[in-house]
Amino acid sequence: MVTLSDTQRKIIEDSIRDIKDFPKPGIVFKDITTLLNNKEAYGVLMNHLYERYKEYDLDYIAGIDARGFIFGAALAQMLGLGFVPIRKQGKLPYTTISEKYALEYGVDEIEVHIDAFGEKKGARVLVIDDLIATGGTANAAATLVNQTGAECVECCFVIGLTFLDGIEKLKEKTKVYSLIEVN
Amino acid sequence: MVTLSDTQRKIIEDSIRDIKDFPKPGIVFKDITTLLNNKEAYGVLMNHLYERYKEYDLDYIAGIDARGFIFGAALAQMLGLGFVPIRKQGKLPYTTISEKYALEYGVDEIEVHIDAFGEKKGARVLVIDDLIATGGTANAAATLVNQTGAECVECCFVIGLTFLDGIEKLKEKTKVYSLIEVN
Repeated sequence: MVTLSDTQRKIIEDSIRDIKDFPKPGIVFKDITTLLNNKEAYGVLMNHLYERYKEYDLDYIAGIDARGFIFGAALAQMLGLGFVPIRKQGKLPYTTISEKYALEYGVDEIEVHIDAFGEKKGARVLVIDDLIATGGTANAAATLVNQTGAECVECCFVIGLTFLDGIEKLKEKTKVYSLIEVN
Repeated sequence: MVTLSDTQRKIIEDSIRDIKDFPKPGIVFKDITTLLNNKEAYGVLMNHLYERYKEYDLDYIAGIDARGFIFGAALAQMLGLGFVPIRKQGKLPYTTISEKYALEYGVDEIEVHIDAFGEKKGARVLVIDDLIATGGTANAAATLVNQTGAECVECCFVIGLTFLDGIEKLKEKTKVYSLIEVN
């Protein structure tokens, strides 16, 4: 299994910017825009993901709206695979299936096109997003992939917040890989 | 200048799905999810963009929220460049500049981090989105790029709706390239 070297990890970690009190007081937001616009760090990250996932015999990469589109679409292109957007409610034009998930206050919903992963059942899918916190969105995304008849083989995150239990809960459903763990 | 061959154009065009009456009656929505999850069509599209833009001596690719992230992030990776997201209002955590633009009914706003294109002035930037209609968003995006001190060298769209005047208006500000023209 391909893992991140200490040098690669440091380049990626150093490129992520902490923003205090965003989106509200007490939260330290992990700003990945400084990773993305740093061509060295972005290249190291994407090459690592390519090396890891080229062995997985995947059929599709699914990215979660909207930051998951960035890593997912680039990875799909590198691997020569199709890309599937999993979107917030109301954005996809064709027939969808949807899944609700709990937020801190209230409920949100994501959806995917019913035919997104092709006609053949059992397509092997990697779900990707920038960050996992409580894991509600990722859990809903993995559920949706499996409901279409495809298989969520793994969920991948650039950043995992290990002081929340999102990763542990998601592991009950699928494999989980997070490159940078924040605790 | 690299242009699309008839064969490449047909593969891409055939992969785009028309959805009638979305998001409202009378509109035919161009569904690019069937392009993205078709690995042949997605590959042809991205390889064409790579061949075209590798000659442009670009510094950054900027993608417009959210479908522009898909093509922009993949192209940035292929070219070894940094990627910059231009986002809807309230999504970016650091200091931003923003630009309002008119919708059919009302006003919307997009923004970019003030330091998104680095410290050196005059960075060469390609702005990318999936589709241009009236061009309000793209015009605002090009304005924002130039306001940071960088230079919007070209705006690129997978689909251009030529029965609206968005492309012509945008050409007063920057170069415009749309692969598939719908009239």
